[in-house]
Amino acid sequence: MRAAIFKEAGKIEIGERPDPAVVDPTDAVVRVVMACVCGSDLWYYRGDTDFPADSPIGHEFIGIVEQVGDDVTTVSVGDFVVSPFAYSDGTCPDCRAGMTTACARGGFIPDNGDGGQGELVRVPLADGTLVTVPGSPADYSDDVLASLLALSDVMGTGHHAAVSAEVDAGDTVAVVGDGAVGLCAIIAAKRLGAERIIAMSRHPSRQQLALEFGATDIVDSRGDKAVEEVEKLTDGVGVDAALECVGTNEAMQTALKISRAGAIVGNVGLPHGVEIPAQGIFLRNVGVHGGPAPVRAYLPELIADVLANRINPGKVFDYTTDLDGIAEAYAAMDQRRAIKSLIKVRDRT
Amino acid sequence: MRAAIFKEAGKIEIGERPDPAVVDPTDAVVRVVMACVCGSDLWYYRGDTDFPADSPIGHEFIGIVEQVGDDVTTVSVGDFVVSPFAYSDGTCPDCRAGMTTACARGGFIPDNGDGGQGELVRVPLADGTLVTVPGSPADYSDDVLASLLALSDVMGTGHHAAVSAEVDAGDTVAVVGDGAVGLCAIIAAKRLGAERIIAMSRHPSRQQLALEFGATDIVDSRGDKAVEEVEKLTDGVGVDAALECVGTNEAMQTALKISRAGAIVGNVGLPHGVEIPAQGIFLRNVGVHGGPAPVRAYLPELIADVLANRINPGKVFDYTTDLDGIAEAYAAMDQRRAIKSLIKVRDRT
Repeated sequence: MRAAIFKEAGKIEIGERPDPAVVDPTDAVVRVVMACVCGSDLWYYRGDTDFPADSPIGHEFIGIVEQVGDDVTTVSVGDFVVSPFAYSDGTCPDCRAGMTTACARGGFIPDNGDGGQGELVRVPLADGTLVTVPGSPADYSDDVLASLLALSDVMGTGHHAAVSAEVDAGDTVAVVGDGAVGLCAIIAAKRLGAERIIAMSRHPSRQQLALEFGATDIVDSRGDKAVEEVEKLTDGVGVDAALECVGTNEAMQTALKISRAGAIVGNVGLPHGVEIPAQGIFLRNVGVHGGPAPVRAYLPELIADVLANRINPGKVFDYTTDLDGIAEAYAAMDQRRAIKSLIKVRDRT
Repeated sequence: MRAAIFKEAGKIEIGERPDPAVVDPTDAVVRVVMACVCGSDLWYYRGDTDFPADSPIGHEFIGIVEQVGDDVTTVSVGDFVVSPFAYSDGTCPDCRAGMTTACARGGFIPDNGDGGQGELVRVPLADGTLVTVPGSPADYSDDVLASLLALSDVMGTGHHAAVSAEVDAGDTVAVVGDGAVGLCAIIAAKRLGAERIIAMSRHPSRQQLALEFGATDIVDSRGDKAVEEVEKLTDGVGVDAALECVGTNEAMQTALKISRAGAIVGNVGLPHGVEIPAQGIFLRNVGVHGGPAPVRAYLPELIADVLANRINPGKVFDYTTDLDGIAEAYAAMDQRRAIKSLIKVRDRT
């Protein structure tokens, strides 16, 4: 099969890989229809985090089940599925509590050996991991498919920020970060009933999408200036929930400072050099909660909302190519020419 | 009036102070019936935190309103009241949201100038701060009065740990710390419906009280050994909520490690040298939330529970004296001979 291969930092190519097959009886193999590039893939692409040379990469995809192991009972060959970026057994205490990314038997793609940006992907623990969508990809528009694809990571991750920060009806929420996750966090906050949503963004095209997704206010500054502006917007009180969707220390400090007393910062950006001032947040009763999003647990409700056209997270894709265009898909995101790149791996019919 | 005076570290004496009077029209003056010594008073007593020499000290008391300012409308002379350790206006956005310790006009006794361990105390912002109890102290037993006194800080603070950690019906909860606050946190966890409560305590008398308050399991080790034991008790999953009631780094690390994925550590011990590992807690989806307890907001429901004999937090007082015994009241707690010292300031009739 053809798949994206990480050659070295800055160099992603399409290469040939052995076709994956069922290894464990709980596996499924999925023929990918659409895949995409994640902000976290860029850590490797930029050389910020090590990644093994000549390895498959990616972890977000939708597709059609091609093979299932003998023990798989909830998905069948031919099923249209969304795969979350982490696999999980669905039966352990953590999975049952909805914390699927803590599953002791689970893991994070591409540790499945195939990555997610290729023609075929072996998905371990298929029963616990894959979620079916009624019908087949041919039944849906490209826009709906893009929105389903967004559920494999960014939309579920944005939702996790809002859930972790306990966004509630009527809340004033601020979203720190205007990447695909931050933009999806706006959708999530609105979906959970936030009345006012302050998007912190300095890029006109992203501000536009933020407004389309439900942001009511834009703050286009950073650091202390941004904190001041949010304070002004909230009459000095701060926000009921701050969604930290970046992972840098600056983003976290901003999120902590703009939070009102008693609020929780929901963080979904993998912390890079983040310092949480224990006494500082204590004195203000500000909390921090978040982590790798248990996307699998959120998929049923989010798929339902996509199919009912209540949310359209696929709009975060502003660059579309095919597997041959993989290098440019990464480059466009790296250079911030694209918010998020979609890879049409095969025809949807 | 007579009041406890902090002379220097290790030396608390009874001295003469001017009788407080109404200064601002929102003040009340309360004649203290019972007061007590807080674990936080010991920081000063032990010289761990600076405190001004020859100053009044203490912040927990119940008593009878003796004077009110012209603007005070919700309490009257002769009312029996519980005073929380922090005063607050009750009308600002933070107070209305129940986060009374964030009130911009508020403050923390003894910054009222009188402390709380004396015959009379000026309470600023009396309408927002004081909560009345039906009848007079003479109508209640010493046990009930002791429980009402416990609401002025430790019970409300233990409750805040449980609220911050979002203890829910059926939860498995661990309480780190067996001081008065930790013991009250057990009451709070049980009150919120926790099914299993693991008390971490190495002192037989405190273990006994923990069990009486609702603990179902005792872990009498510390550090990694304690973490192992809690893991064993929870089948390797960890607890649904960890209540950190100490404030040391060791206690926080224990609380973080025993928390299951997705859980929140509710912390109410003022952090001393606590380091929160941002990436470590992120990868496990463990949160941290807490701070100075908004005791005022919790008083109505807790007073109701004390008067209905549903909770008896006054049992944390295992040493009773009067104002003349103040030095020994501190020494007994400092030397851990007492969990918490109660000062009978005047006869309750």
